[in-house]
Amino acid sequence: MEALKGNCIIGQSGGPSAVINASALGCIEAALGSENVGKVYGAAHGILGVLNDRLYDLTREDPEELALMRYSPSSVLGTCRYKLADFLADDTDYKRILEVFQKYDVRYFFYNGGNDSMDTCSKISNYLSSRNYPCRIIGIPKTIDNDLAHTDHCPGYGSAAKYVATTCMELSRDAKVYNTGSITVVEIMGRNAGWLTAAAALSQVHGDGPDLIYMPEVPFDMADFMADVSRVYERQGDVMIAVSEGVKDKNGTYISSYFSETSRTKDAFGHSQMGGLATSLAGFAKTKIDAKVRGIEFSLLQRCASHVASATDIEEAYMAGKAAFEAAERGVTDKMVGFKRVEGPQYKCETTLIDLVDVANAEKRIPREWINEAGNGVLQPFIDYVTPLIQGETAQPKENGLPRLAYLRRIMTREL
Amino acid sequence: MEALKGNCIIGQSGGPSAVINASALGCIEAALGSENVGKVYGAAHGILGVLNDRLYDLTREDPEELALMRYSPSSVLGTCRYKLADFLADDTDYKRILEVFQKYDVRYFFYNGGNDSMDTCSKISNYLSSRNYPCRIIGIPKTIDNDLAHTDHCPGYGSAAKYVATTCMELSRDAKVYNTGSITVVEIMGRNAGWLTAAAALSQVHGDGPDLIYMPEVPFDMADFMADVSRVYERQGDVMIAVSEGVKDKNGTYISSYFSETSRTKDAFGHSQMGGLATSLAGFAKTKIDAKVRGIEFSLLQRCASHVASATDIEEAYMAGKAAFEAAERGVTDKMVGFKRVEGPQYKCETTLIDLVDVANAEKRIPREWINEAGNGVLQPFIDYVTPLIQGETAQPKENGLPRLAYLRRIMTREL
Repeated sequence: MEALKGNCIIGQSGGPSAVINASALGCIEAALGSENVGKVYGAAHGILGVLNDRLYDLTREDPEELALMRYSPSSVLGTCRYKLADFLADDTDYKRILEVFQKYDVRYFFYNGGNDSMDTCSKISNYLSSRNYPCRIIGIPKTIDNDLAHTDHCPGYGSAAKYVATTCMELSRDAKVYNTGSITVVEIMGRNAGWLTAAAALSQVHGDGPDLIYMPEVPFDMADFMADVSRVYERQGDVMIAVSEGVKDKNGTYISSYFSETSRTKDAFGHSQMGGLATSLAGFAKTKIDAKVRGIEFSLLQRCASHVASATDIEEAYMAGKAAFEAAERGVTDKMVGFKRVEGPQYKCETTLIDLVDVANAEKRIPREWINEAGNGVLQPFIDYVTPLIQGETAQPKENGLPRLAYLRRIMTREL
Repeated sequence: MEALKGNCIIGQSGGPSAVINASALGCIEAALGSENVGKVYGAAHGILGVLNDRLYDLTREDPEELALMRYSPSSVLGTCRYKLADFLADDTDYKRILEVFQKYDVRYFFYNGGNDSMDTCSKISNYLSSRNYPCRIIGIPKTIDNDLAHTDHCPGYGSAAKYVATTCMELSRDAKVYNTGSITVVEIMGRNAGWLTAAAALSQVHGDGPDLIYMPEVPFDMADFMADVSRVYERQGDVMIAVSEGVKDKNGTYISSYFSETSRTKDAFGHSQMGGLATSLAGFAKTKIDAKVRGIEFSLLQRCASHVASATDIEEAYMAGKAAFEAAERGVTDKMVGFKRVEGPQYKCETTLIDLVDVANAEKRIPREWINEAGNGVLQPFIDYVTPLIQGETAQPKENGLPRLAYLRRIMTREL
């Protein structure tokens, strides 16, 4: 295939992670080093940067500062949650995208995000193809939720899992240090998939870590929960619980909605509660057990904790970005980079290429057989799956005792 | 002075920290190495371990496992919040303490905690003295609050400050990444002193970190707060706020109490809110500014995050414990180990000895002149004070990608 010459845009989308910038860097450095690419642009706030013609000229950044993106959390280019319409229904956005691509002679477009971002990628790819505009479009996966289909795992997950496991280990030391009874509920991200919550199990070493783990894959029942908690509390005088924000009952109703002020079930539990699920479940336990209770929400911390990122995750994230550019350069388009675990005694991960359309609207959840029968813990196959992903410590440089993050100049093309 | 021969007890009390075990280790290793000390006991759950005759024989621990205490968070011996009565009013506990000390021939007692623990130490010291029971009693400071008087700073503070600054830096990257307006409120520990909250200022590098910082040292006014937030929001479209859990209004009323369900001010703000101050203040801001708001509470995480502990803090904590034993061995009693900053161009810290009674009932707060006039940020003298305390990364060993904490055998003397 003949080389396609032109410029390149990379955008970031969806929720941040500790390594999304490592992926962007892998792609940017490969593009900057390619003889087929002239300018490398960063879209400010994802696809909105294209629609609004707000592009950073990354060619003008100091390469050493760019290199710090490997260790800088969140999306340095800015992100968005913007859903493109179906172009058969409304092609306004698509026309604008083509216009901007033509203005800047963009022939390579990379989008770094979760399944919504892959949907965006897929739609743009289809539209440009229908307009016979040659452009190579590749998705670069990112999600702490680890819920993308057809890939062994997702960049961002390993670091978030390492944060969750490290923090749960430390927390359990703190929560269990008094001589008085205590119940500690920790709320972890994941609306539909429990991958990140399940990673709390890694901290279950020599009595550390949570006693009970609840994931959205198994229907959550308040009575079973209370029975589990009571049983553990009676045995050891304290309980630590890890729970996915997205646990639902057998009818698919979010448990968190039980506790909202307007909920009809409010009176059933005797309490009107605001705030997160952790606080609500801790308060509920308090109505049954006279212990000190505490709800803790990892909130944004779990997705931006670059200081405790997994070295394995960082390297794989970079590899995914680099593989995206290399695939595009050799003629591939309309794909997302995925990961494949190479069979063998040692963990080894290779990149693959997956049709965007197959990823866009799918969601991968924990296999039921990796979760125990009671639905309050995980089994060895899950531990074997996740353990390699959290290995290795970040080499994040420090300045004055704090992370030295990347400070980009972010010069807009329109300012030049 | 003639050498005092006998056995030794060390206890830990009050809230945990990332380095309280490093202090205990400094003391334990010095005691184990002394020819004047036979057995080294750990009191299970602080002074309660003495009262209940629940002592661990630390002589029977593997020294290599003990050494991991340097990097293990929370109190490995267990802790308590137990206040001794005045012995003139009720000497039951004191008689029991003397009885247990006599039973085990205890001549050295070390108590590792905050100002309440120093009060305990001081009372025991006075009582034993009045009963002519020779026993050397030394307090070893510990508090993430950094509020002990007569010492430059406290072991535990540097690590908590490093956690707060690191996390605020990462969070600000995440909170400001969208193109839509956002208000993020972070709640940090400190009921009366703002030392830990003020440490968030260390993350104010190149536009990172919080825009506004509120400490209990300055009366908090809801109208001023809202004016500050609005001003920053109008300028930059997002605001990050760090606030002490203990901020109070000019009448000394906790701001958090404004938002409790039973508060009379509930209707004034139009909301009934549960949960922490961060969520409440974020909710309040939402009533005035149409932005995405989020409250984040660092909760227990800020006091047990050993994975991001300050190497300076770890070494100083160990030094404090070691100095406590060495002072006792050479005849000192009724003192707490303190820190003094040696004058000179380079930061250097030495131990001092402070009368227990002077520490027991005092509290050190941030000097008003280290806080800006508006009361929503700190000035350079504070930065100069705190910067050396967060320097250096922990050498915490890792196993399988997670902290390798100390697992003690904890053999009770009564089980022997």
